[in-house]
Amino acid sequence: MIKLLVLGSLAVSSVFASPLMKQAREAGLVPIPSDKHKVRKLVDNPKNPLNNAKIRLGKMLYFEPRISKSGLISCNTCHNLGTGGVDGVAAAIGHKWTANPHHLNSPTVYNAVFFDAQFWDGRDPDLEKQAQGPILAGPEMAATKEHVVKTVTSMPGYVDAFKKAYGKDVKITYENITATIGLFERTLVTPSAFDAFMQGNTKAMSKEEQEGLKTFIDKGCTTCHTGIALGGSMQAFGITGTYKYADVGDFKGDKNGLVKTPTLRNINETAPYFHNGAVVTLKEAIVEMGRIQLGIEITDKEAASIETFFNALEGKKPEIVYPQLPNPTASTPAKNVN
Amino acid sequence: MIKLLVLGSLAVSSVFASPLMKQAREAGLVPIPSDKHKVRKLVDNPKNPLNNAKIRLGKMLYFEPRISKSGLISCNTCHNLGTGGVDGVAAAIGHKWTANPHHLNSPTVYNAVFFDAQFWDGRDPDLEKQAQGPILAGPEMAATKEHVVKTVTSMPGYVDAFKKAYGKDVKITYENITATIGLFERTLVTPSAFDAFMQGNTKAMSKEEQEGLKTFIDKGCTTCHTGIALGGSMQAFGITGTYKYADVGDFKGDKNGLVKTPTLRNINETAPYFHNGAVVTLKEAIVEMGRIQLGIEITDKEAASIETFFNALEGKKPEIVYPQLPNPTASTPAKNVN
Repeated sequence: MIKLLVLGSLAVSSVFASPLMKQAREAGLVPIPSDKHKVRKLVDNPKNPLNNAKIRLGKMLYFEPRISKSGLISCNTCHNLGTGGVDGVAAAIGHKWTANPHHLNSPTVYNAVFFDAQFWDGRDPDLEKQAQGPILAGPEMAATKEHVVKTVTSMPGYVDAFKKAYGKDVKITYENITATIGLFERTLVTPSAFDAFMQGNTKAMSKEEQEGLKTFIDKGCTTCHTGIALGGSMQAFGITGTYKYADVGDFKGDKNGLVKTPTLRNINETAPYFHNGAVVTLKEAIVEMGRIQLGIEITDKEAASIETFFNALEGKKPEIVYPQLPNPTASTPAKNVN
Repeated sequence: MIKLLVLGSLAVSSVFASPLMKQAREAGLVPIPSDKHKVRKLVDNPKNPLNNAKIRLGKMLYFEPRISKSGLISCNTCHNLGTGGVDGVAAAIGHKWTANPHHLNSPTVYNAVFFDAQFWDGRDPDLEKQAQGPILAGPEMAATKEHVVKTVTSMPGYVDAFKKAYGKDVKITYENITATIGLFERTLVTPSAFDAFMQGNTKAMSKEEQEGLKTFIDKGCTTCHTGIALGGSMQAFGITGTYKYADVGDFKGDKNGLVKTPTLRNINETAPYFHNGAVVTLKEAIVEMGRIQLGIEITDKEAASIETFFNALEGKKPEIVYPQLPNPTASTPAKNVN
């Protein structure tokens, strides 16, 4: 058994299907496992283990507009699972059509489970904690904890779903409502051609995509865009230059000026780019990153090559059956669009 | 063969599983067929026949926020398929959080194919025509035809889907974009316990629900709430009294003062009620209808009985896999939230 494990380990570290795969692994790029059970284990929360009942309930709550003050905004409004997990506008729009006061762009929820930290300033450690924020934020869903708990507990369909997920004696709280949303989000993982390539299928990526990957590594992009998410860690922003659109919004990063690196998975689908959504094209985003993070000039040709690699990062989305949400009752709180 | 058909016809008209079923049929109530092929035939558009490629494309467009001016509002925003096909607010909220200027409530899209006419004033004959309206309306999706056509044609994913649906030589126009949305909506049919009962399964509805159905007919509700939709025809409004909330909004019906009768299918899920959404509870809605349409007083007990019948009208929704929408391209029009 031990012998086999050692052999397995040797196989991974010394035998690569191509030199590029070796280079990519050494640069810190990590594929999503091809085995679904391994993925489930990887994204699981040991303190609140995933099961199908929790995921089903979390999905309902993710699509539930009635937990917002107006009854009109759900998690899916800004993190639309049909459009790359984002809303596609520069700054998020919430309750009463309020734009994010810091001009922050909605990050994708796909593969967010692989991030070191959540939010652009990394202030929350995981998706369960993250989900607590936007529901209460005035410019987003503008609810109160009481509104959310009262809404959910007013509907027998939700009370039953909580019992199925957590057992008969479950107490429905704001914390376990939001934690269940986070659990569902953990399952939003999108394996791609890049992952197949990194697991040894050298034909999964085209020659041009492989060249783009090499350019991506050679230029130094993997300094920050590493790991499974090709991003998700906190990094200094504007090391070798000042961001061209630094004046759009007032976001300055966390207390140390660090900003969360966005994932590059599905980046084709998540324009506009950067924390303030001020960059519209991938080409400009790539060139700007070279200038302000790596202190290099990335040529148009190199940018185009890197962009070609990004095609291989477009992943297969999990099939989501649109949930039928529970019927309201006489005790369901009134909606307030004002 | 002819003999069998005659026998079949006799069976329907003379042999009822219960006297109540006979009474319901005679009052004009019609079930949704239990046979899926019959349903498909019933909801089909002979001029633009349904096929799976059109339905799939129509579903994508139904959930497509990028055809709105802001990129944030789709058909599903106000006609949410997870909450009875409605938004649950009194007056629809659209672009820039604008409330419907006439204080009109979003009607459900489920079973709308069975309506004689579309919109509260019945101005459009079918779902294909109806879908043309809200996308262009300033307080709703606020788009222009040009924006919609340019957005759809900018994405190869849509161009391919149109070819699959209509053939290689299809020209993508505002009219066939909206018609395809209408075709998808034709499939949103929700068979219920009431339908099973009307087809001879006397146990499909509880004793109390059957009593409620009898009260519903005896009181005269089937004067307007008939047909497959239990509604959907244009009727005079306020025949025997003045609507309690007539001053909410300025809607006065069509040029003859007629108002479209809402469907009662899934009515448990589509509060608030009436064209201006001013009535919150079913009980009040039932009593108010008796007073202003039938000139009778419906007691609390009778209203409760009718409400119990409505439980049997809650139908099974078709399973909707949330669509993955096509990637934008450099020529996809910019979003404008202002």
